[in-house]
Amino acid sequence: MRFLDIIEKKRDKFELSHEEIYFAIKSIVEGVVPDYQISALLMAIYLNKLTVDETYDLTMAMVETGETEYISGISEHSIDKHSTGGVGDKLTLVIAPILSALGVPIIKMSGRGLGITGGTLDKLESIPQFNVYLSKNKIEKQAREIGIVISAQTKELAPADKILYELRDVTATVDNISLIASSIMSKKLAIKNKALSIDLKVGKGAFMKNIEQARELASIMKYIAYKNGREINIVLSDMNNPIGRSVGNTLEIIEVVDVLKGDLKEDVYQMAVDFSAHAVKLIRPNENINDIKAQCREVIDDGSALNKFEQMVSYQGGDISFIKDINKFSLAKNQIEIKACGDGFIDYDANLIGQLSLLSGAGREKKEDKIDFGAGIYFNKVWGDFVNEGDVIYNIYTNKNLSDIDDLIKSSYNLLDISTKKNRIIEVI
Amino acid sequence: MRFLDIIEKKRDKFELSHEEIYFAIKSIVEGVVPDYQISALLMAIYLNKLTVDETYDLTMAMVETGETEYISGISEHSIDKHSTGGVGDKLTLVIAPILSALGVPIIKMSGRGLGITGGTLDKLESIPQFNVYLSKNKIEKQAREIGIVISAQTKELAPADKILYELRDVTATVDNISLIASSIMSKKLAIKNKALSIDLKVGKGAFMKNIEQARELASIMKYIAYKNGREINIVLSDMNNPIGRSVGNTLEIIEVVDVLKGDLKEDVYQMAVDFSAHAVKLIRPNENINDIKAQCREVIDDGSALNKFEQMVSYQGGDISFIKDINKFSLAKNQIEIKACGDGFIDYDANLIGQLSLLSGAGREKKEDKIDFGAGIYFNKVWGDFVNEGDVIYNIYTNKNLSDIDDLIKSSYNLLDISTKKNRIIEVI
Repeated sequence: MRFLDIIEKKRDKFELSHEEIYFAIKSIVEGVVPDYQISALLMAIYLNKLTVDETYDLTMAMVETGETEYISGISEHSIDKHSTGGVGDKLTLVIAPILSALGVPIIKMSGRGLGITGGTLDKLESIPQFNVYLSKNKIEKQAREIGIVISAQTKELAPADKILYELRDVTATVDNISLIASSIMSKKLAIKNKALSIDLKVGKGAFMKNIEQARELASIMKYIAYKNGREINIVLSDMNNPIGRSVGNTLEIIEVVDVLKGDLKEDVYQMAVDFSAHAVKLIRPNENINDIKAQCREVIDDGSALNKFEQMVSYQGGDISFIKDINKFSLAKNQIEIKACGDGFIDYDANLIGQLSLLSGAGREKKEDKIDFGAGIYFNKVWGDFVNEGDVIYNIYTNKNLSDIDDLIKSSYNLLDISTKKNRIIEVI
Repeated sequence: MRFLDIIEKKRDKFELSHEEIYFAIKSIVEGVVPDYQISALLMAIYLNKLTVDETYDLTMAMVETGETEYISGISEHSIDKHSTGGVGDKLTLVIAPILSALGVPIIKMSGRGLGITGGTLDKLESIPQFNVYLSKNKIEKQAREIGIVISAQTKELAPADKILYELRDVTATVDNISLIASSIMSKKLAIKNKALSIDLKVGKGAFMKNIEQARELASIMKYIAYKNGREINIVLSDMNNPIGRSVGNTLEIIEVVDVLKGDLKEDVYQMAVDFSAHAVKLIRPNENINDIKAQCREVIDDGSALNKFEQMVSYQGGDISFIKDINKFSLAKNQIEIKACGDGFIDYDANLIGQLSLLSGAGREKKEDKIDFGAGIYFNKVWGDFVNEGDVIYNIYTNKNLSDIDDLIKSSYNLLDISTKKNRIIEVI
C-alpha cells in the first residue's frame, strides 16, 4: 500500500477502506509521510468528504496509534467536558470546579487559543507559575486526590491529531465535519472517562456557522461515542455574542474567580450551572435536572467550587495568592474606551470582538505567536443591555499601538430596538 | 495578501485574480511558502479547476518569475518540439537532427523519465559522457554553430515549474489540464523560439487517456501561445501501442541511430518524417507539406540528419565512437523471451509495456531512483504484425530477477483477428 494511492483514491471520490485509513494514520504517526502528502490528502478529504464509516475508522486509527489514559477507580465515573471553542469562553474553568465539588471527577486535556478562539491552557497560564504540562503519573495522582485535572494534551495521546491539526490550520482544511469530529473524538476517546459532555458552539464566533452543520457534527460524534460505549451529550449553544464580561486571558481568569466566589451571577454563571447539570446528568441519569442545577448553585454559594479551583491551581504549581487577591494580576497598560454611537439594545459580533482581542495581543494568529496575558476586552455593557449614545460599552486592554481598527470597532456591535438576548442553549442532543 | 487566503479561495471555488496568482507564484519561487501549503493549493486546483484566465496568468507568472533565453539571429526562426511523453517515444532524437539538417535550428530543453514515461535526457545519457547540463553560453554557442541543442532545463528558466512539478508528482495532482498546460507552456515560453510543435499523446501509455481531454489541453496551450505571438501546432497522436522497436534508454538510442542511418524505415521513421514536416511548416508556411516530407526523407537518405546527431553528441561531450559503432553499447545481461500465447494480429498495451520496462530497471518510480541504461524491451513483433503461437514477440532486458510479472506479460498484448494498426497521427490542431 502506498500513501500516494490513498490520496489518489480520495481525490477521485472513492471510499477509503478500514485498512487504508489505518495504514495512512499509522504512516503519519511513524513520521514516514512528508507533510506535503498529508496536506494533499487533507484537501482531498475536505473537498470530497468522508463517509460516516471513514470518519469512524479515522477516529479509531487516531486513538489506536497512541496511548490511552485509564485511571482505575476514577475513569469509571469521571467526566470530560469539551468546548468547540468560542470568544470569551471561560466556562470550562467554572464547570470543572463545580463538577469536582459535586464529587464527579473531571480529567480534561485542553488546548491553546488560535485565531479568534481562546484556549483554556493559555488562560490558566496567565496565573503565574501554573503548569499545564503534567506527566501521566501526575495526572493520575491529582485525579485521585482532588478529582480535577486540566492538562495539556500529552504527546502520547492521539499523536496523529497534533500532526493533522497543525497542518489543517495552515492549509485551509479546518472546517470539515469529519476532520473536526475525528480530531475531537480521538482525544476524548484516548482518555477513558465514563461520560463526555460537549459544548458545541454555533454562530459568528464559532467554527460552526449554522445549526444544520452543528447537528451533523453532533450526530457523527454521538455515533462514535456510542460505538465506544461512552455516555455523551452535546449541547448546541449560541456563539454570536461573546460570553460573559471579558475576552482575554488574565481578564477571563479574574471573571472566573468572581463567578466562583458567587460575586458575578450573570451569563457565565447561568451557563456554567446549566452545562454542569447536563454533564452530571450523564453520570447520574436518575436525578432530576433541576435538582442537579440546585446542587451546582450550592457548591458555588458554599465556596466548595472555588476551593476545588484553588486546589487545582496549587497542585499545578500556580501562585494561589493571585486567586486569593485578584488585584495582584496586572493588565495591559493602554485602555481604549469604546463608546456607543447611538441608543439601543446591544448585540455584539463575537467574530469581530474575537478579532479585536487578537489584535490587542490576547490571541495568536500563528502557533508561534506569543500571547500577552494582560491584553483583551472588558465589557461594561453586555449582550442585551440597553445603552445610550456615549456610554462606554467596552474597553480594549493592549500594550500595542493599535491603528486601523475604527471600522472593526464600528462593526463589532449593533444597537437594536429590541433585545436579541436569549438562552444560550439552543438544544441538547 | 496571504498564501493561506489563496488556498481558501480556490478551495471555495472562487476565481483567483491576476494579482493573487502572481503573488502565489512569486512566493513559491522565493521559497517562502512551505511545501504543505503548495500541495494543499495544488489539490484544491486539481479538484476545483482553473479557468482559462487563471491558467494563462499561472503560466505567465511561472515564466516571468524566471529568466528567459533569447538567441538573437536564431530565436527568430528556431523551433521547439515537445512531446507530452510516451512509451518508446524516441521521436525527438530523430526529429531534432532532421530539423537542423533542414536549416531549422532546434533549441530544446528536455526532461527525465518518470513512471512509465521515458525521458529524452536519460536516453541521451546512455551515450557515455554525454552532457545534458549546458550553461546559457554553451547553449547559445552550440545553437549558432550547429543549430541543434538538447539540454536539461536550466534552474533559471521557469523555476516555479520544477517546484510545482515535483510536488504534483508526489501528491496525485499531475493530470489536471491547467497544471499540465502551465507546466509545458511556461518552459516553452521561457525559451524564445519562433514556433512550437507539440506532440500531444493520447491513449493507454499517455497522461491523456481520451481525445476530448487532449483537445481541451491543446486548445488552452494554443491560446497561451498565440497570446504570446508564438506559432504553434499540436499533433494529437495515438499512444496505445509503444512506439517503434524498443523501450529503454540504450535500446532506444540504438534504434534512433538505425533510423537516422536509413536502416529502419518503420514506425519511428514515418512518424519522425510526419512530425518534422508539420514542425517545419510552422516556419515555412508557404511550402507544401508533401514537399517538406520529401526533404525530411532526403536528409535521412543523404546522411545529413545523422551527421547533425553526431555533431550534437560530440558538442555535448558524448563518446561518438558508440554512435559510429552501436555494437559498443552494452545491454542488460538477462534476456526474457516472451512468446505469443496464440495466433493473431498483435496489439500492445503501452501502459503495461511501460510498467514492464519500469520493472526491468529502465525507468524510475521515484525521482531519486537510478536508471539501468541497458534495461528495457525489444520488440521482435510490433503493432499490427501477425504472429503465430510460440513466436517470440518481445525480449525483456534486465539485470534484475523479475518475479510476479506473468500476469503483466499476459495482459501486455492482445492477439486479434484484424490488425488495429493505423496512422499514429489523429489530428493536427
